[in-house]
Amino acid sequence: MDSTDIVRRPWDETASAGVSETKTLALDGVITLASGRTLEGVQVAYETWGRLDENGSNAVLVCHALSGDSHLAGLRPGEDAETAQPGWWDVMVGPGKAIDTERFFVVCCNVLGGCSGTTGPSSIDPATGLPWGLRFPMVTIEDMVDVQARLLQAIGVHRLLAVVGGSMGGMQALAWAKRYPERVGSVVADATTWRLGPQAIAFNEVGRRAILEDPDFAGGHYYAEESQPESGLGIARMIGHITYLSDESMHKKFGRRLQASADYAYDFVSEFQVESYLAYQGARFVERFDANTYLYMTKAMDYFDLQGDAPSLADALRGVSARFLVLSFSSDWLFSTARSRELVAALRENASEVTFAEIPSAYGHDAFLLEPEAQHKLIAPFLANGLRRVSPAGEAE
Amino acid sequence: MDSTDIVRRPWDETASAGVSETKTLALDGVITLASGRTLEGVQVAYETWGRLDENGSNAVLVCHALSGDSHLAGLRPGEDAETAQPGWWDVMVGPGKAIDTERFFVVCCNVLGGCSGTTGPSSIDPATGLPWGLRFPMVTIEDMVDVQARLLQAIGVHRLLAVVGGSMGGMQALAWAKRYPERVGSVVADATTWRLGPQAIAFNEVGRRAILEDPDFAGGHYYAEESQPESGLGIARMIGHITYLSDESMHKKFGRRLQASADYAYDFVSEFQVESYLAYQGARFVERFDANTYLYMTKAMDYFDLQGDAPSLADALRGVSARFLVLSFSSDWLFSTARSRELVAALRENASEVTFAEIPSAYGHDAFLLEPEAQHKLIAPFLANGLRRVSPAGEAE
Repeated sequence: MDSTDIVRRPWDETASAGVSETKTLALDGVITLASGRTLEGVQVAYETWGRLDENGSNAVLVCHALSGDSHLAGLRPGEDAETAQPGWWDVMVGPGKAIDTERFFVVCCNVLGGCSGTTGPSSIDPATGLPWGLRFPMVTIEDMVDVQARLLQAIGVHRLLAVVGGSMGGMQALAWAKRYPERVGSVVADATTWRLGPQAIAFNEVGRRAILEDPDFAGGHYYAEESQPESGLGIARMIGHITYLSDESMHKKFGRRLQASADYAYDFVSEFQVESYLAYQGARFVERFDANTYLYMTKAMDYFDLQGDAPSLADALRGVSARFLVLSFSSDWLFSTARSRELVAALRENASEVTFAEIPSAYGHDAFLLEPEAQHKLIAPFLANGLRRVSPAGEAE
Repeated sequence: MDSTDIVRRPWDETASAGVSETKTLALDGVITLASGRTLEGVQVAYETWGRLDENGSNAVLVCHALSGDSHLAGLRPGEDAETAQPGWWDVMVGPGKAIDTERFFVVCCNVLGGCSGTTGPSSIDPATGLPWGLRFPMVTIEDMVDVQARLLQAIGVHRLLAVVGGSMGGMQALAWAKRYPERVGSVVADATTWRLGPQAIAFNEVGRRAILEDPDFAGGHYYAEESQPESGLGIARMIGHITYLSDESMHKKFGRRLQASADYAYDFVSEFQVESYLAYQGARFVERFDANTYLYMTKAMDYFDLQGDAPSLADALRGVSARFLVLSFSSDWLFSTARSRELVAALRENASEVTFAEIPSAYGHDAFLLEPEAQHKLIAPFLANGLRRVSPAGEAE
C-alpha cells in the first residue's frame, strides 16, 4: 500500500539514476503457486541501475508496494527530464542517494499479478486468447518472491547483498529472508508488517467490494468493454489514501478548509478540500492502474503471514540468517510501530542482527515515500556495512 | 455515527422502559433552514417515557446518532419481549437505569432528514407528489435542533433538565446549549466532537461517493425502482463500521481467523471473519435504512462546527449557561479524547461547570452503546444533581 502519485519532491537531475529501459524476461518452465495452481510462460518486467561487480556481491533488489512498478528511479528512454515523472522511489535511488547506484547493482521488477509488464490478470490467458481476469490464479507474496528469484538467476544475480522494500515491498523483503536464506545478506523492512491485522484486512475488503460490485467490473472481463470499473477502483483508492495519511498530516494539509467558496454550498459536490483531494487521487489512479490487479495485490497482502503455521514468529524465523534494518514511522497507523516491534523482538529472540528505528514523521504510512533524509541516514550506512562484509577490498578503495 | 445493530446486551425485561408508541406531530408554519431554504408541514416522529412533573422540570431529551430513530428504549406496541429488538439505547434508559424513566420525562425524536417517521428525503415533496430524493434541502445539526425545539414546545416541554446524546446525538446536545441557552440546564456530550476533522470528513465522503455512484441510486430517485442502491449503502456502512471499532477490539473479536476452513481458499469470497462480519453488517443495514438519509446525515455531521465564525471555540461558547458532562472513550479514534479535551478547555475558559471523563474501553466509538455501567456511574449522578437544583423538594422525598 502506498500512494506514489502524492506530491513529489522536486526532480533533481544532478542526482538522477539516469535513463533505464524496462526489459522483459520470459521465465522458462512452470511455476507452482502457493494455491497449488500453476502458471507457464510468465513474463517479468524489470529495470536495473548500476553495474554488478565481478564477485556478484553488490546486487540490491528493491521491491515495490501495491501500486508500484519496475520504474524505481530515473527517466524512461526518451523522457524529458523537465516534464518526466521520476521513478516511484527516485528520492532514494541514484548516485549518492540512500541506495547508491554508483556502488550497487539495483534491480526492480513488477510483481507477479501486476499490471505494468509482468504477467497478471490483464495478461492474455493462453488457454482462451483473452485476458485472464478473475480466472488468473491467486498470488501470494511468496509467489512474487519466487518469480523474482527466477528472474535474478536468469540475469546472473545469484546472491543479494540486500532486499529492500516498503509496505507490500517490505513483505516481499521479509519473505525473501525466510524463503531464500542462503541468498540474502541483508533486509530493509520499511513501513511494513509481518502480517496484517483485521483492521487493515477490513479496509482492503471494502475496497475490493467496491470494485467487485461495480457493474462495469463485469466479473473482471471489462478489458474489451466501453466502460471500465472506474467508480469502484476510485473508491478503493480513496479508502486506501485515507489510511496512508495520518490524522495529523490531514489536519495540517487540509483542516476543514473549503475548496471553492468561503461559505458552505449545501450540496453534494465536494466542498471540503480533503474531499476534492481524494476525488482527484481516485480519478488519477484509474488512469494508470488495473482493477483486477488491485484485487490480487490486496489479497496477497491479506494472506501474508510470516509466522504461518509455526508456534511463534520467532520459531518461523529460526533459519533466517540475514541482517535486518526495520524501520517504522511514528504516525503510520496502518503499518504501526507496535507491529514492527513484534518483528524485531522475534528476530532478537533468534539472535539475528537487527537494527530498529521509528522515524518521527507526520506523514503516516506515506512517510516511506516522503522522508528520504531520515531513511538515507539509516539505510545508506546499513547497506555500506553489508558491502564491507562481503568485499572489504572494494570498500577500501 | 454509531452501529445500533452490533451485538446487544441481553434484554433485561425487569428494567424495561415499557411499551412506547411512536407518535407523529405535524409542526405548524414554515421552518427556515441554515441553507436559507424552507420547509413546510414538517412531521416529527417521537416517543416519550415517564411523566413530566408539575413544574415541567424533569424533561430529558435524548438525541440519536446517524442510524438511530425515536425508538430509544423499551418495546414497541404489540412486540413480544422475548423476540423484540429493544430500543437503541435500552441499556441506558429505563427504571433504575442511567436515564431513569421513573424520575425523568424522556423524549426522543427522529431527526429532520431521517427515515424513521420524521420528514426527510424519502418523504413526499408536496410540490411534486413524489419522494424528495436529492431535492430535499440540506439539513444541519442546528436545523435538527430547531425542529426538536418546536416539537418540545408543542408537547408542553418548555425547559430541558438535560439534553443527552452520543456521536451525532452529542453534536445536537452541544448545539442545543449554544442555540437555546435559556432552555437547557445540562448537557451530556458523549463520544462526540465539536467539529469533525478532515479524516472523519474523508471517510464520510467516500461512503457518499459509493452511494452516489451506485447506478441503482438513480440520482436519488430509486424509491419506485426495482433495484435499490444496496451496494453503495452497504459499502458506506462497511467503511463506517471499521471506524466505529478499534484496532484492539477487532484483534480480540476477529484476529486473522478464517470464516469457514482451516486453510486459505484463495478466492474472492469473504475468507477472514472480519470480512464476513462487515458484509453482514452492510447487508442488514440496507434493509432498514434509506440511502438518501445516509447522505444527509453525514453531510450534517461534516458541516457541524460549534466554533462557527467565532475567533475561538471559547468565544463561540460565551453565552452558554448549561452544566456539561463530557465523556470520551479511550479507544475511540473517530471522536477522540483529544478533541473532547479541546471542548472541555473552551468551556472551562468560560468558567462553565464541566465534568470530563475518559472511559477506558476497547470498543472504539461503539463504546457509547456497549459500556452502560461506566456511563451509568457518571450520567446518573450528573442528572440527579441537575434535578436536585431545580426541584430540591422533589429530591428530598
